[in-house]
Amino acid sequence: MSDSNLNSIYPARHARLVAALQQAGLDALVLNAGPSLVYLTGLHFHLSERPVVAIFSFAAPLTIVLPEFEAGKAENLPYPVQVFTYPEDPALWSQVFQKAASAAQMGSGMVGAEPRQLRLLELRLLEAAMPEAQFVGAEESVAQLRSRKDEAEITAMRKAVTIAQQALQAILPSIQAGQTEREIAAELTLQVLRHGSDPEMPFSPIVAAGPNSANPHAVPGDRPLARGDLLIIDWGARAGGYVSDLTRTFAMGEPDAELARIASIVKEANMAARTLAAPGVMASEVDYAARSGIERAGYGKYFTHRTGHGIGLEGHEDPYIRSGNPLLLEPGMTFTIEPGIYIPGRGGVRVEDDAVITPSGCESLSDLPRELLILNGR
Amino acid sequence: MSDSNLNSIYPARHARLVAALQQAGLDALVLNAGPSLVYLTGLHFHLSERPVVAIFSFAAPLTIVLPEFEAGKAENLPYPVQVFTYPEDPALWSQVFQKAASAAQMGSGMVGAEPRQLRLLELRLLEAAMPEAQFVGAEESVAQLRSRKDEAEITAMRKAVTIAQQALQAILPSIQAGQTEREIAAELTLQVLRHGSDPEMPFSPIVAAGPNSANPHAVPGDRPLARGDLLIIDWGARAGGYVSDLTRTFAMGEPDAELARIASIVKEANMAARTLAAPGVMASEVDYAARSGIERAGYGKYFTHRTGHGIGLEGHEDPYIRSGNPLLLEPGMTFTIEPGIYIPGRGGVRVEDDAVITPSGCESLSDLPRELLILNGR
Repeated sequence: MSDSNLNSIYPARHARLVAALQQAGLDALVLNAGPSLVYLTGLHFHLSERPVVAIFSFAAPLTIVLPEFEAGKAENLPYPVQVFTYPEDPALWSQVFQKAASAAQMGSGMVGAEPRQLRLLELRLLEAAMPEAQFVGAEESVAQLRSRKDEAEITAMRKAVTIAQQALQAILPSIQAGQTEREIAAELTLQVLRHGSDPEMPFSPIVAAGPNSANPHAVPGDRPLARGDLLIIDWGARAGGYVSDLTRTFAMGEPDAELARIASIVKEANMAARTLAAPGVMASEVDYAARSGIERAGYGKYFTHRTGHGIGLEGHEDPYIRSGNPLLLEPGMTFTIEPGIYIPGRGGVRVEDDAVITPSGCESLSDLPRELLILNGR
Repeated sequence: MSDSNLNSIYPARHARLVAALQQAGLDALVLNAGPSLVYLTGLHFHLSERPVVAIFSFAAPLTIVLPEFEAGKAENLPYPVQVFTYPEDPALWSQVFQKAASAAQMGSGMVGAEPRQLRLLELRLLEAAMPEAQFVGAEESVAQLRSRKDEAEITAMRKAVTIAQQALQAILPSIQAGQTEREIAAELTLQVLRHGSDPEMPFSPIVAAGPNSANPHAVPGDRPLARGDLLIIDWGARAGGYVSDLTRTFAMGEPDAELARIASIVKEANMAARTLAAPGVMASEVDYAARSGIERAGYGKYFTHRTGHGIGLEGHEDPYIRSGNPLLLEPGMTFTIEPGIYIPGRGGVRVEDDAVITPSGCESLSDLPRELLILNGR
């Protein structure tokens, strides 16, 4: 991205934030290190024992509190900012937060925060610095900002999908019975990085075979793959900060009839959800499009999770494609479509694509075949 | 809390937790997904938008709240446990937390929590479920449990150090001027995984050359390495869940006299700290051992961070080796020794080892040469 784009992107996002806060009746937003801070400031910090906090208030310029030794990151930013730094001794942090709150003109009011990001560490420092303020969840205001991706964001996600797909194709020919889930996961990680993923991958690949494939969030283990196993591979990459998150299911040799059947049902459910998704459709309707097919086939109780989740700077973010979510989809929203059937003790199937809502419907960024591919089962 | 008759590390850890909580005057400890949950329960969960919470109270068995679809992870645990699961709709979570708090017999009292782990998400659910309880930081009680490693933990860390060292040695011969920091970081990541790291690496390697090396927490960029650059590589691996975290500094061709001099000063500071560290020595004294040499040489203002931090299941944990920390070191404590000098605009040097306190002193788990190694600067 050019410097001129960089110079305009954050002020524009700040203006949208102001509108979102006003709409929600909030006087300020506090962010700690994490993806929303990246989105709104371009500042990357690891979440660590040293708190980094940004205060967006109406009354003052953006106010940032950070460790002294990282002060350089807050220099030459393309927007007005007040920076407060603290030394290593935690006993001295509280007074720095008080100065920052004072400079942000935040003593009281309704302060939005991110429930999934803000920790007790930052909350207690902020509460002490703004004793009259009330801290409330602002996840919807932040989601409103971040969930509709612009072209540059979608381009980054396309790249993340391409990297992930190429990486999987690089390892598929070598998968065979006798290998362990862990070995396959390590090889896939190598290939994701080699194909150009940002070093910070969104998550470690899930490789789950046989009985383990019936556990949707299995951790790769040391059981050797056996003939007849289903093999779920759930993996992703990151490009320009944006993630991909895909799943395909394979069979180690010819699967038994029921396992082949659930693979076909899940593939149809994936397609039904992608076909229905469009601007103005409710997230819950997309979930139901996938779920109803699986229920009709008699496997409803084995589809134990929601149909999808938003992706972007985070691997899981708004919008959530689940039963009960009345959110209306809008162009630019990006999320996974990942129905699955998991038969305990026997095996599971999941087919996951990354989708973007277009002006007229839904485009899958991922295009690997969705059929159950039979790998060498020897 | 835990009367398990199974032969397992967890009942012993639960007993130590009871003692630590009683000593701190706490009635319970709440943990969310993270390393302390792994340490005390063996349960691995990713920190996600779905809260996972364990309540350790004196009055009832361990109580765990988790998503329905992950219920399988809490089956067949080697200790008594009460499990409460919730469905996908967040509107239904609150009542599940209320049932769990009731089963844990926790309506009131002083409840410990981890400031760096517990999020507003879990805090608000717990506050609603335990309206009379007061949530306070219990970081010291948890640190007391986790900071003295047993033999199995130290063995895992030795393995993580060996993997990291072998990985660096694999890439050193190919580093040359013209390569970018990002390229080197990706190659190093490949090698760390190939040499057997757990897939979930503790952090992405920091590769920082030239002016960027003067920024202690730089992010690898696209500037090509140039002759005369200092090159800082800060990397680690993970084995059996435990991490290593090392740094070495290199010169791209012959460095100028001052850069060579600061490399020598930092190496001596590293040695001074390792030599002093021993049971009964204060963490602040170890920091001072490193810092005073750098100050005497006139570079004190360029050593902008603490001397080290604990390592274990986390990349940063107790004990912190910093000015003002009166903690007395004990056998089994593991931490980094990582003094540095950073001259803005010119370059920086850091030499970081992973150390363990032994009954009689301090052993470095890492043994790569600490001299400034001159790489091919063409």
